[in-house]
Amino acid sequence: MSVKIDATITQFGGKLFKLTHDSITTKTPMNVNVFIPPTTKPKIPVLLYLSGLTCTPQNATDKSFFQYFAAKYGFALVFPDTSPRGANIPGEDTAWDFGTGAGFYVNATREPWKTNYNMYSYVHEELPKVLAGEFKELDFDNVGITGHSMGGMGALVGFFTLPGKYKSISAFSPICNPSVVPWGEKNFGGYLGDADKSQWEKYDPTCLVKKYKSDESSPLILIHQGLSDTFYERELKPQNFVDAAKDYKGGVDLKLVDGYDHSYFFISSFVEEHSKHHAKYLGLL
Amino acid sequence: MSVKIDATITQFGGKLFKLTHDSITTKTPMNVNVFIPPTTKPKIPVLLYLSGLTCTPQNATDKSFFQYFAAKYGFALVFPDTSPRGANIPGEDTAWDFGTGAGFYVNATREPWKTNYNMYSYVHEELPKVLAGEFKELDFDNVGITGHSMGGMGALVGFFTLPGKYKSISAFSPICNPSVVPWGEKNFGGYLGDADKSQWEKYDPTCLVKKYKSDESSPLILIHQGLSDTFYERELKPQNFVDAAKDYKGGVDLKLVDGYDHSYFFISSFVEEHSKHHAKYLGLL
Repeated sequence: MSVKIDATITQFGGKLFKLTHDSITTKTPMNVNVFIPPTTKPKIPVLLYLSGLTCTPQNATDKSFFQYFAAKYGFALVFPDTSPRGANIPGEDTAWDFGTGAGFYVNATREPWKTNYNMYSYVHEELPKVLAGEFKELDFDNVGITGHSMGGMGALVGFFTLPGKYKSISAFSPICNPSVVPWGEKNFGGYLGDADKSQWEKYDPTCLVKKYKSDESSPLILIHQGLSDTFYERELKPQNFVDAAKDYKGGVDLKLVDGYDHSYFFISSFVEEHSKHHAKYLGLL
Repeated sequence: MSVKIDATITQFGGKLFKLTHDSITTKTPMNVNVFIPPTTKPKIPVLLYLSGLTCTPQNATDKSFFQYFAAKYGFALVFPDTSPRGANIPGEDTAWDFGTGAGFYVNATREPWKTNYNMYSYVHEELPKVLAGEFKELDFDNVGITGHSMGGMGALVGFFTLPGKYKSISAFSPICNPSVVPWGEKNFGGYLGDADKSQWEKYDPTCLVKKYKSDESSPLILIHQGLSDTFYERELKPQNFVDAAKDYKGGVDLKLVDGYDHSYFFISSFVEEHSKHHAKYLGLL
């Protein structure tokens, strides 16, 4: 589980690390960026950000501006990659929305994907352990999760399937009901197969929220969705999630924002609000 | 002087425009990004940001996070390109630090560059006129200027050679004394020739500040320079500028910041301070 530091960069008084490590889960080297804020606290809360289709750890690191607010509030950031790279599976580079850059945060059960494409276990299980070993100051008992698009879906899935693991949850234009949209059908079909669609529900926030045992202490789910996002109607379906979440006791705050698209210009516009949201649950406000 | 809008993007409640127009000065199409903040004021002050070597308008637009503070304080942003593109001059794409992406904000006097490589006149004269025609709400009588590296140099040169044009001035790791460093020798030699080095002084902040007629109303010059910037000693020479500026009555605030490099991670870390600096002189605080 040794981690190689490819770059150490000073930003906002903190340190940004660009890292590579050999993953047991994906059986490939994996890239991950970590931002440690300037703080004198011995234990630093963590916000895990899962990126969307085609992204590497660099997109959010360069364009989200999360580091500004992480430095302000005092949480660390973890930006994982979106898939294994270099698994050399035939066809993994054919489409922009399946395979490389599109791990969909599932554990694949079909050949030839199941050996490497296990991003669910990677981001939620292996990666925190690897980073906890490397950065003793990070408090992996006090972690929030967020993400964009495919990564917003991955964040919601992690929150619902690992109760108590994430203290706070938000998402930017998440794929809310993947089982019924083209992106979900393509990726779930590819990684999990079409034979048993009950397997898809394990990774579908709209299915998961219905079964989730919430209580009064469950955190509010903050979601922003741009109304000029060309994927909104076809792929994202936040209203399906809100309807399914009517019994979720923490509540869902879906903000439909006029004029915004699906890009990092949209994400960066609401990173301040999401940062404050997570800071509150992570005990930083 | 018609301007084509390639994209209109909502960010931070304002509008980001990606534009193309045919330039009379460079005789090529030119790209420029403009951010209009959300404001009800009839006249909006403008901050002109000149980018560094290799950059297009996208680098600062994507990575500087200036828009967040432009929206907060109420100034517009103009991100021009760093050179003509598509002039099809033999050799313009040979080096990363000369030719395309490296116009050096001079008006070339040598063949084959002098027909197109006139970035001084383009950014300080033509571009403001083009944009004033397109965006009536922009107040081109109330403009600040800043920039990074080559663009920090370009900002300082514009400030000193066009007295009164820019109400505020700052720079991120500027090339402060180009006449005596390799980047300057290469570019001044290429665009202006080696025969008459007095021509170089017209574009050298360290030479220009000595002759500048400042008074008590001259603005403070804010400069940040990272101490882990690998170009600092060899190419940037901010101390030469500070020494030469001892009679500049507005003062120079050179901040040497430990640990920071030459990248947008450095720039974004100090954009808040620079934004506040410009907002003050532009009458927004």
